[in-house]
Amino acid sequence: MRAKTDQSLERMFHPASIAIIGASADAPETGWVGRLLNFGYKGNIFPVNPKVNSILGLKTYSSIGEISYPVEYAILNIPARFTPYVMRDCVAKGVKFVHCYAAGFSETGTEAGKQLEAEITKIAKQGGIRLLGPNCMGIYSPRSGMTFDEDFPKEKGGVAFISQSGAEASRLVFLCQDVDLYFNKVVSYGNAADLDATDFLEYVTQDAGTKIVAIYVEGVNNGPRFFTAAGKCVEKKPLVIVKAGLTENGAGAAISHTASMTGVKTVWDAFFKQTGAIPAQTMDEVADIVQGLMRVKKPRGRRVAIIGRGGGIGVVATDICERAGLQVPPFSAETRRRLLQVIPEAGAGVRNPVEPKIGMEGATEFYLKGLPIVDADSETDIILIHMAIDVYGGHTPELTQNITESTYALCAAVDSLNKPIVVALFTGGHSDTIEAVRAARKILTAAGIAVYSGVEAASRVLSKICHYYRFLEKVD
Amino acid sequence: MRAKTDQSLERMFHPASIAIIGASADAPETGWVGRLLNFGYKGNIFPVNPKVNSILGLKTYSSIGEISYPVEYAILNIPARFTPYVMRDCVAKGVKFVHCYAAGFSETGTEAGKQLEAEITKIAKQGGIRLLGPNCMGIYSPRSGMTFDEDFPKEKGGVAFISQSGAEASRLVFLCQDVDLYFNKVVSYGNAADLDATDFLEYVTQDAGTKIVAIYVEGVNNGPRFFTAAGKCVEKKPLVIVKAGLTENGAGAAISHTASMTGVKTVWDAFFKQTGAIPAQTMDEVADIVQGLMRVKKPRGRRVAIIGRGGGIGVVATDICERAGLQVPPFSAETRRRLLQVIPEAGAGVRNPVEPKIGMEGATEFYLKGLPIVDADSETDIILIHMAIDVYGGHTPELTQNITESTYALCAAVDSLNKPIVVALFTGGHSDTIEAVRAARKILTAAGIAVYSGVEAASRVLSKICHYYRFLEKVD
Repeated sequence: MRAKTDQSLERMFHPASIAIIGASADAPETGWVGRLLNFGYKGNIFPVNPKVNSILGLKTYSSIGEISYPVEYAILNIPARFTPYVMRDCVAKGVKFVHCYAAGFSETGTEAGKQLEAEITKIAKQGGIRLLGPNCMGIYSPRSGMTFDEDFPKEKGGVAFISQSGAEASRLVFLCQDVDLYFNKVVSYGNAADLDATDFLEYVTQDAGTKIVAIYVEGVNNGPRFFTAAGKCVEKKPLVIVKAGLTENGAGAAISHTASMTGVKTVWDAFFKQTGAIPAQTMDEVADIVQGLMRVKKPRGRRVAIIGRGGGIGVVATDICERAGLQVPPFSAETRRRLLQVIPEAGAGVRNPVEPKIGMEGATEFYLKGLPIVDADSETDIILIHMAIDVYGGHTPELTQNITESTYALCAAVDSLNKPIVVALFTGGHSDTIEAVRAARKILTAAGIAVYSGVEAASRVLSKICHYYRFLEKVD
Repeated sequence: MRAKTDQSLERMFHPASIAIIGASADAPETGWVGRLLNFGYKGNIFPVNPKVNSILGLKTYSSIGEISYPVEYAILNIPARFTPYVMRDCVAKGVKFVHCYAAGFSETGTEAGKQLEAEITKIAKQGGIRLLGPNCMGIYSPRSGMTFDEDFPKEKGGVAFISQSGAEASRLVFLCQDVDLYFNKVVSYGNAADLDATDFLEYVTQDAGTKIVAIYVEGVNNGPRFFTAAGKCVEKKPLVIVKAGLTENGAGAAISHTASMTGVKTVWDAFFKQTGAIPAQTMDEVADIVQGLMRVKKPRGRRVAIIGRGGGIGVVATDICERAGLQVPPFSAETRRRLLQVIPEAGAGVRNPVEPKIGMEGATEFYLKGLPIVDADSETDIILIHMAIDVYGGHTPELTQNITESTYALCAAVDSLNKPIVVALFTGGHSDTIEAVRAARKILTAAGIAVYSGVEAASRVLSKICHYYRFLEKVD
C-alpha cells in the first residue's frame, strides 16, 4: 500500500535500503558493498552472495527473497543472462528500483541481447519496478552516500549530471574536482530501457539542491518530451548538453555503445536554438562551462579586455577571442591615458591587450593599480587575465611562492571589480611550473574565480555564456 | 678584409666572441653573462660595464672600444635612447652582428620611437652591421651555447623556431621539452628593423641540422620574398606557421607589439594553400604538429581506428575526429570477427571504436593481441589510442606502476605496426593520475610515440598532417 510518490526519483536517489545481488567477496572494499560503507551510506545494506556468510562484517543472504527487511533499491551485479530470474525475485520482494549494471543487452546488436533487454523491461513494468540501465554505472549522490567509484569526492555541490556513459560521468566528476566544483547527484543510465534522460531531467529541474544541470546523451526515447523538459529546465536553471553521435560514424559508435538512435543533426541544432540549452562537445568543455556559470558574473556584452605578460601571447589571445565570437576593442582614450600612469614602460601595450610590468611583481602591481582602471573602461565588458607561467621567468624555488603571493593579490583585487573576470592559467611542462600552476589554481578557485587551462578554453566558455544570457533576456 | 660569408647567419648563430654592453653586475647569474657561461658558450665573452672591474670572474670593459680582441656579436642590454651611440661604437669596433634587446622603438607608436629605430637601422646598414631586433630576446642555440633564458634545456634537437615574439618562443621551448622535443636554433627577432623572418627562413631551409621549421610571425617586411622562401622551405622540410594578428583587433594588437602590418586574411589563406606551409593558431598546436611530423608515420589516408576504454569516450572521440575532417569507418567484417576472439565480452564494441577489456590489464592484453588485428584492417589508415586515466579505475598507489607496465607493452607492440599511431593521454586532476600521466608520457615519447593531451589535439594534428602529405604528393 505504498503511495505513488514512493517511486519518485527523489526516493531512488535516497533509498532507505540497498541490496547488492552478486556482492563481491574478493576485494570487497572496491566492490559495491565497500563503496557504500566507505562513502557513508546510512541505510541498510544487504549483500546477496550464496557462497559466503558475511562481507565486510555484513551478513550475506543467498537470495533477495531471504532478506526479512524491506528492500527499496537493488543493484544487480550479475551477468546479463541471469538478470530475468533475479528481476522476478525483486518483483516478489517488492523492490522499487533496480540498477542493472551488466552489459550484454541491446547494445551488442544481437537478437539475443535485444530480447533479454525487452524481457527484463517487461518484468520491471509489470512488477512495478523502475529500472536503471542496463549497461550502466548507476548513481553517485554524495548527500545519500551512494557512489559507483570509491575515489569520487565526498564533497557535496550544486551540479547534477545525467550521463548515458559511465566513463564520461567519471571524467566529469574528476575534472570538476580539479577546479573545486562538486555534485548534487550524478546518474549513469546506459541503455535507458526504462528510465531515460528525460525522467532524470524532469526530476533535477524541480530539485532544489541542483543549481546547474549537465547531460551526456547519445539518444533519447521520446524526442518531443525531452525537448519540452529541456525548455522547462532552462527557465529555472542552466542546462549544458553533450549530444554525442552527431556525426555519421559517431552515430554508428553510439549504437554499439548504448543501442541509441542518435537522431539528425539539423533537429538537434534546432533543439539547442529553441530551448536555450548550452551545447558542449567534450567533458572538458562541460566542466569549463559549469565553472563559468557558477563563477563568472553576467557580462553586459562580448567585449573582452585582455591582460597578461607576453606581447605575442596577447596578440594570439586577441585572435582566439575574436575567432570565438568575442571582441577585443581598443580601450577608451581615457583608460589608455590612465594606464600609462601605471605602466609607463615602452613596449607594454595599453591599447588592449595590456601588458603589466615584467615579472610576478609587475603582475601583482597591475592587479592592484591597473585592474580598477580596466574595470572602469567604457569600451569593454569582460576581463580576461592570462598567466603563461613560463613567461614570468625563472623555474626557481621561489616560483610557487611568488605566484601564490601574486594570486592572492589578484583575489583581493577581484573583490571590488564590477566586471566579470576569468583567468587562463597555463604552463609548458616543467615540474616546477606545473606545481606553481596547481597552487595558483587552488587559490583562485577557492576564491570563486573561474580558471581555465588556456585562452582557447576561456574564450569558448565566455562566448557560450554570453549567448546563454542573451537567450534568457529574449525569453523574458 | 673579411669574406662576405662571415656575415652569413651561420656565423650569427655561432659567433666566436660576444660583447654584452650593459652587462648586469647585480644577479649576474641570471643576466646575459651568466647565461652564456652556464650554457657552455665556448667563445670569448666581453662584459661591458664601466662601474665594476669584473663580472663572474670575467674582466669588464668600460666601453666596447676598449676591448682589444675582435668582437663578432654584441648584445645591447641598455635603454633604447642610448642605442645610437653604442651602435656607432660597434661600427667602429667592426662588430658584425648586434642584438638590440631593448623595447621603446617603433612598437610604441610614437614618432620618437619610430625615428630612433630608423636611426639605428641606418647606422647598422651604413656600418656593415646586421641588426637583430630591436625589442626582442635574441638567440637560443644549444649547439653554440647561446640562450636568452637560463632555464632552457641544453639538449640539442632538429627544430628551428623563428619567432617575432619572445614570450611565444619561451612557451614553445618549454612545451616541446615536456614531450622530449628539442631545438636546433631559436630566434626571437622583434621589430625586424633589419633581419626579418624571411632572412631566418632562408637560412634554416639550407641548414642541415634543421629538420622542421616553425615560425611565429605578426607581419613580414617583404611579402613576395617570404612567400617564395616558404615554398622553397616546404620542398625540403615541413614548415609550421602561426600567423598572428589575422583578426581585426588581433592586427591592432600586433601593431602595439612589434609595429607589424599584419596583412589581409585572404592573402594569408592563399599563402598557406599555395606554399603547403602548415597553419597553426597557438604554440600548443605548433608543439603538437611538430611532434606529429617527427613521430607519426605518413598515413595512407584519413580513416582512423579508435581504441580505448569508455564507450562514451569512444563516441565523443568519433565525433571529434569526424569534425576534424577525419573518418572513423567500421572495421572490415574480417577484422570484427578476429577482434571478437580477443574481446568477447559484451558491451565492448568491435565496430570501431573498439574497447579493450576492463582495467589496465585489459588495455595491455589488447595492445599485444588486438593491435596487430587493427593494424591489418583494410578499412582504416591510422590508429588513435585514447587513455583517459581516470577511467582505468583506482587512484591507488599501484596506478603509476600499472600504467607504466601497460605503456611499455604498448611501446613494444607499436614496433611491429605498419600503420601510424598516436596516443591521447589525459586525466581529470587527481595528483595521483597527473603523476601517472607524466610517467606514461615520458615512456611513450622516449619510444618516439606522439602523445597528445586529448583526442581534440590529436585529431587536429592528424588532419593537418594528412593534408600536408597530400600536398607533397600533388607537388611531386
